[in-house]
Order: sequence, then C-alpha cells, then structure tokens
Amino acid sequence: MRGLALATPLLESAALNAQFGGRILVKAESLQRTGSFKFRGAFNALSQLDGEARRVGVVAYSSGNHAQGVAAAAQRLGMAATIVMPADAPAIKVASTRFWGADVVFYDRYTEEREAIAGCIAAASGAHLLPPFDDPRVIAGQGTVGLELAAQAAAMDARLDAVIAPCSGGGLVGGIALALEGASPGMAVYAAEPAGLDDMNRSLAAGERMRNDPAARSICDALLSPSPGVLTFAIARRLLAGSLVVTDDDVLGAMAIAWRDFKLVAEPSGAAALAAAVSGQIPLAGRTVAVVLSGGNVDRDVFVAALTRV
Amino acid sequence: MRGLALATPLLESAALNAQFGGRILVKAESLQRTGSFKFRGAFNALSQLDGEARRVGVVAYSSGNHAQGVAAAAQRLGMAATIVMPADAPAIKVASTRFWGADVVFYDRYTEEREAIAGCIAAASGAHLLPPFDDPRVIAGQGTVGLELAAQAAAMDARLDAVIAPCSGGGLVGGIALALEGASPGMAVYAAEPAGLDDMNRSLAAGERMRNDPAARSICDALLSPSPGVLTFAIARRLLAGSLVVTDDDVLGAMAIAWRDFKLVAEPSGAAALAAAVSGQIPLAGRTVAVVLSGGNVDRDVFVAALTRV
Repeated sequence: MRGLALATPLLESAALNAQFGGRILVKAESLQRTGSFKFRGAFNALSQLDGEARRVGVVAYSSGNHAQGVAAAAQRLGMAATIVMPADAPAIKVASTRFWGADVVFYDRYTEEREAIAGCIAAASGAHLLPPFDDPRVIAGQGTVGLELAAQAAAMDARLDAVIAPCSGGGLVGGIALALEGASPGMAVYAAEPAGLDDMNRSLAAGERMRNDPAARSICDALLSPSPGVLTFAIARRLLAGSLVVTDDDVLGAMAIAWRDFKLVAEPSGAAALAAAVSGQIPLAGRTVAVVLSGGNVDRDVFVAALTRV
Repeated sequence: MRGLALATPLLESAALNAQFGGRILVKAESLQRTGSFKFRGAFNALSQLDGEARRVGVVAYSSGNHAQGVAAAAQRLGMAATIVMPADAPAIKVASTRFWGADVVFYDRYTEEREAIAGCIAAASGAHLLPPFDDPRVIAGQGTVGLELAAQAAAMDARLDAVIAPCSGGGLVGGIALALEGASPGMAVYAAEPAGLDDMNRSLAAGERMRNDPAARSICDALLSPSPGVLTFAIARRLLAGSLVVTDDDVLGAMAIAWRDFKLVAEPSGAAALAAAVSGQIPLAGRTVAVVLSGGNVDRDVFVAALTRV
C-alpha cells in the first residue's frame, strides 16, 4: 500500500489543547485518497485477489466511502467495479464513485437489503463481493491507520492514553485495535457511534451482536450499519475499552472545531471521534488522546450548517 | 526548525487533475502551526537572535499571519511579542495572535503607517523589529516550503514544470525560488497576486519597485503589502518567471476547489496560487504544477460565501 495510500498527517491544535488541558491528536484521513480511510482496506483486499478474480471484477455495497475506496482501488488494479449505494447517499459520494470508474446501482436504505442486492449481482456475474468491514484483509488495511498513528505520535513525543475511531461495522476501529495491541499497556481504544445507532455500544454491553432500530436516523451517513460484523465484534469484545455515543449536535460541533482549529474538512461521520473526545465522556486533562478524522466527503449544505456552531 | 514546523503534506486530486489534463500538487501550509507558512520564517529569524535580544522581545507588524507566526515563535523561545495589526484584520487572526501570548496594537490600514508605529514601539522598548518579508532569515525560513515541496514531488514521481506561491511582499515566493534555484532547469516559479494589488507584477515589468494604489481593495487580506521588498524584489527579478494576477472571484472559486477536491480550508490569500493555476494563464495539460496553499485563517462568513461557488 505504501506509495498508494497517503501517510496522512497527525495534527494538533495548541488552542484546543489549551481549552481542554490535554493533547488531542487528529489523524487526518479526510486527506486520504478518495477523501476517507476506506481506500486502505479496499486496496489491501483487492490487491491480494488472483488474476482470474481480478479479471471478473468486484461488487460492493456502501453508503459512499467504501464505494469510493473500492472504485479507486479497482481502477488502480485494472478491475471493473459495481457499487450498490443508497439512493439518499450524499451527491458528492455518488459523483466521486462514478469518477473512479465504477457502475453505481441504487437501493432504498430503509426498505431494501443491500447485501441481498449485491449478492445477486455477484452471483450473476461471478464478481468478487467485497464486504465493507467484515473481511480480514479489509480490517488489516484499515489497521494501517493505527500503525501510522502510533509512529507519528512517538515522533511527536506523545504517549497515547486513548485512541478513538468512528465505528459503523467496526472495521476501522477493529483494525486499529489490532494494530496497536500490546503497543502501550495503558492505552485504551474506543469506538465512536451516533446516538440511536450505537449497535457496537449495546453489543459490547450485551456480549452479543445487537441490531439498530431500523427507524433510527443520524446525519452520520457513513455510520448506519445495522450491526457489528462477526469478525469485528470478536475483535471489539477482546480489545475495545468501550464505545462512546455522540449526538448529531455533537458531530456538527466537532465539524466546526475541525474547520476552525485544524483547517480540515470533516464529514459528519468523520467528525464522530473528535466529537466523542470533546464530549466529556473520557478524561482529557493531562492526557493525550488521538482521534481518527475518518473522512471529508460532505455536501455543502451540511457543511455550512455545521459552521454555524462556531 | 525540524520538529517544530510541520512538514505539511503535498496533496493532489485525481478529479481536478482529470479536469485539467495535468497534475496540480497542493502544498498544504494551511495545516502548518498557526495556520499559515509564516511560522517558518518567524521562527528561523527569532531563533538566531542572541540571548540579550531575546530577553528584550520582538515587535512586528502584520495583517495577521506573520502576527501569529511571530507570536508562536516568540512564545516557543520565551520572548515577549508586540504585534501591530490592522483594525480590520480577520477576527480569527487577532484572537489567535493573542492566544499565542502577544500584545496586539491596532492601526488603521488605510490612514496610518504600520512601519512607523512598529518602529516607534521598537525604539522605545529596544525590542527587535522583525519585518514580515524583507529579512534574509525570514526569506530563508519561508524557503523551507520549497525544499519540502521538491522532495515530496520527487517522492511522488512528479517532475515540476512550475511552482506558484501567493505574493504580498515576496518573502514566500522569493524563498521558494532561492530554494529551488538550479533544482530543475525547465521549472518556472511564479508569484500570484490579487488584481489591483499586483505590485510585484508591475515591478517586474517596470524593472523597479512599484507601489499599489492605496485605494485598491481585495478579499486577500494577507496580500495587501504596498510594494515588494528590496531583498525580495532583487530575488524576484533574478528568479521569477512572472506574477499571475487573480480576481477576488477567482480566489473564492479556488477556496471552493480546495474544500471540495482537497478537503482543505483555505483563506482567500491562501487560495491565490491555486486560483492562478486554474485560471488558464499558464498551461496545465500534460504538465505538473505545484501551488502553495499558504494559509487557512478565515472567518466563517467569507468561507461560507466561497462555498457557494461549487
């Protein structure tokens, strides 16, 4: 992946640190190729397919960031890609997925099963079905965020007390937890989830995979997966310190902080971990907390709405 | 400076490249400590003062980015700082300059001489007067942008045909031109200036330092210096391929491109070089052009206005 995925910077803001009396480090995956971390997992998985599988192509389902990641990775590898996307995905995500050469098939997020649609397409064409998170190579690819983050923090003389990453199915936070396992005895890894869509939080409490209420809504369009994956939940049970739940208001405020203090464009889902860090749920004073700003693919009106929070 | 100034990323957008048929590389100095490149020159200059000079402190005048750079560098070095700023400087720049511990003295940009006010303060206190651009150590510090940019471009297999940097007094573009002198025979270095405030452009044409019309106005609040410096003009005459002039409309459009395609927050002045790159004044097809996105310190209303351009 080296030379293809960008080693995104780990940034901090003296003003924000002063406000909270600790260090908040932001891993700017919004600057990653395709505007989110998803290229990492997609490329890692697709690049390990054999020649025949590559020739037939790939199918994926995604609310938009995995879509772009798969499309860009497939284009790089000379593969055809078909992506099943919700009809209400942000326009910027649909346009970018098509830019990277993929065919887009729409479905209704609230009445249709995207897995079934993608499965049908894969069965008919023979194309490889690449899941958004519940795949060892996807999880390993996302985990490179954790490897980079740890090396960058060390170069900044920062000893990490906690790392927080947004969580939909759990591929990113699970990959990071695996990458950092044993790196630092006192370090805690947390998921961040939208209120009402906190399936990981409730799953960890219940000790089994729980599903979200299909009626639940959030502006975090990339964090709406119905439940943790089988693999990702097994990782989460073993390695996560917990899941921090944030409201849409928290997320809009964090988008404004990202703009003002870090000069970064965050999409709602991308700001969830930063929102969790400043929400008061975990201590910041005298501590160092890294958050993954996981994506920046946001439509203008949502972004402008967030800026009214500063 | 290593470890204090951030080695900011050099980014590109496949979508924008496809639109223009060339490669546009963006050096994201908006992510630099204090939100602009100015920390580099300020720290390089102040860190070379002797102990007695450091004890007395520093005075500077600035529309806001040099202000923050000097304040942050002074704080780092344990020096007192007084900054003379225009009364109409963006609120975010005034607040940040104070955050870094400096005293702020206001003046009227259109009726008072900031050099005279800063000179009085320096004479009365004995503090070192640090010019915003016409100082060899300031120019050398800004030139590190060019050194990083060249190394990063090489790592991306990019052979630079042109580099464009915003120009007020000429410290940034002059430092970059010096840093890149002889690096690549065919490479051209351009300044980018606001229409009506194109003193460098007219000075290069005239062969002597020209002044701007005091009545000229632009949203590029960091590019309003009345004329090139003595040192910077000597460098510019010898090394620049020219100065590209952009309108406020061009700049607002480039801020929107930075947001959409690079996920970066640019202030108006910071977007001037990107505006110049996409303005059609120099060829892009089949070529590689690097632009310095020099700062991201922008008030909300101006930023929101720019986003209506996408």
